[in-house]
Amino acid sequence: MLKTPYLLFLGDAPDQLAAKTAQGVRDWRPEFALGQMRLANCKADLGLDEMDIAQAWEAGARTLVIGAANRGGVMSDDWMPILIEALEKGMDIASGLHDRLQDRPEIVAAAKASDTRLIDVRTPQNKYPIGNGAARKGKRCLAVGTDCSVGKMYTALAMEKAMREAGMKATFRATGQTGILITGSGVPLDAVVADFMAGSIEWLTPDNDDDHWDLIEGQGSLFHPSFSGVTMALIHGGRPDALVLCHEPTRTHMRGLPHYKLPTLEALRDLSLETARIVNPDVRVTGVSVNTAAMSEDEAKAYLTKVEDRMGLPTVDPYRHGAARLAEAL
Amino acid sequence: MLKTPYLLFLGDAPDQLAAKTAQGVRDWRPEFALGQMRLANCKADLGLDEMDIAQAWEAGARTLVIGAANRGGVMSDDWMPILIEALEKGMDIASGLHDRLQDRPEIVAAAKASDTRLIDVRTPQNKYPIGNGAARKGKRCLAVGTDCSVGKMYTALAMEKAMREAGMKATFRATGQTGILITGSGVPLDAVVADFMAGSIEWLTPDNDDDHWDLIEGQGSLFHPSFSGVTMALIHGGRPDALVLCHEPTRTHMRGLPHYKLPTLEALRDLSLETARIVNPDVRVTGVSVNTAAMSEDEAKAYLTKVEDRMGLPTVDPYRHGAARLAEAL
Repeated sequence: MLKTPYLLFLGDAPDQLAAKTAQGVRDWRPEFALGQMRLANCKADLGLDEMDIAQAWEAGARTLVIGAANRGGVMSDDWMPILIEALEKGMDIASGLHDRLQDRPEIVAAAKASDTRLIDVRTPQNKYPIGNGAARKGKRCLAVGTDCSVGKMYTALAMEKAMREAGMKATFRATGQTGILITGSGVPLDAVVADFMAGSIEWLTPDNDDDHWDLIEGQGSLFHPSFSGVTMALIHGGRPDALVLCHEPTRTHMRGLPHYKLPTLEALRDLSLETARIVNPDVRVTGVSVNTAAMSEDEAKAYLTKVEDRMGLPTVDPYRHGAARLAEAL
Repeated sequence: MLKTPYLLFLGDAPDQLAAKTAQGVRDWRPEFALGQMRLANCKADLGLDEMDIAQAWEAGARTLVIGAANRGGVMSDDWMPILIEALEKGMDIASGLHDRLQDRPEIVAAAKASDTRLIDVRTPQNKYPIGNGAARKGKRCLAVGTDCSVGKMYTALAMEKAMREAGMKATFRATGQTGILITGSGVPLDAVVADFMAGSIEWLTPDNDDDHWDLIEGQGSLFHPSFSGVTMALIHGGRPDALVLCHEPTRTHMRGLPHYKLPTLEALRDLSLETARIVNPDVRVTGVSVNTAAMSEDEAKAYLTKVEDRMGLPTVDPYRHGAARLAEAL
């Protein structure tokens, strides 16, 4: 659990896309996004107040979040004096980079001296139990995809927002590093040891109010051979009551695998239901979320209508049109 | 890769069952089972030559395998002088216990001083790649089960034996600690980090001769919610050409999960094929392996005949009747 609010450190991000983690915090948890700190050559800008470490601390920031990747995803030596200053001031540091805070002796020493925490969100921070497949109180919705990176995190966050706006009880449950940094907690599922995958998701989605929904961030795809085991653990550990199918219609092959075609939405529906029914016979598919970023507005509308007719399910692009219809379907 | 042959250390095993790892070596790799070493209160006996460390070294033993668990699965303090003597003599030590060799400073120091290796086979010994789902040369057969612990390892080992006896090229590929100790290599899949599960199995079953079969040890079950993700990674990483269905007919619920019934063999066949076809459209189910240990000979025969008629597949208990028919079906 990260302490909030955050100072979002953008470093020397070469473009706006490199700051997508920080952008995610700003978009989905604006109450955590106290200010931004940028180096001279930073090309990203979130439009937040510019703060140095002292100003951010004074304003209440309690965690410095490394919200941008430079080329290579490594921690630049130029960042070290800033990170150490933040620790000395009393802030924790959280990072989703491959390059770990824990592997930098000067950072570890500064954190120890100031009794602050270093949180590499790609590294599991808990010991998780082995899953037990038991029913839990409350409701759960899982986003599943025809492929990796088709908008599963975005869909779950947009549904959480729409549900809260409609007065429903809803909590996004992060299963990847970006989602964890955005919401301040979660399970970095792809870094969890195999035996504990399902148990980590049970831990993440505990008993709750009968009318509360967990919106579980999906990972991978049952149809992506590199990561299908991770997806399976999400389906069985998450024990979903509802599944939302996520798809990117212009993709010509599975991400990173030119020799694999994407499955149809029907195939995704059928295999997801078949596997989810092993833990919850009452699971339903409640909607389709399509990432139409590569289409014009007219193309997108035509495509969504066609899929809605074909599948008989509410079908939206939550980025273009919001997720209200996916939320209503629950 | 463990150095062979082994001195099998049985410690103070309270009964024969506690020495099942050592028994597995003796049954399946007798050429590795050079001798046994037992403490005064040991109740297990493999019928091998009794050797002390000096005698075993002299006879050629190059790894001391901890082949028994005492109560609690921990390493007893009484063992320490023996383990240190083995290391000083020049032997490696291999262990499948939860309690790790690497966590015992006196053992680590002795190994360092003598330039010998400590191999905790539950701990991955390699950095594995991310899976790429690509086709590989040679053939692969995977044992899948209606539940955990229904005889998948035994089935694959018995098939390897039957195939070798029939002059076929066959290699058992271990995916759990017992199998690794028996054959001297493998992947401890349940301890691999989620993202690398499928890749570790691709690594374990590389390109081979066109007429060579890998017999891949199964883990968990697609129908066991605690471990289904591990099984899925085996199906997609192993890219099997053939699947053998494994079952224990007297079990009343999934192992450790009283609220889950076992699936039918038909359900196992269908879901295994559906998921395996994602990576290999030509995959077939070639046989059924039933653990009939809890049945009389007559009951077992009647049950096997009934299943064979129902499924239209060669159906055997490899422990009672050998695996020749499963091998022929490939």
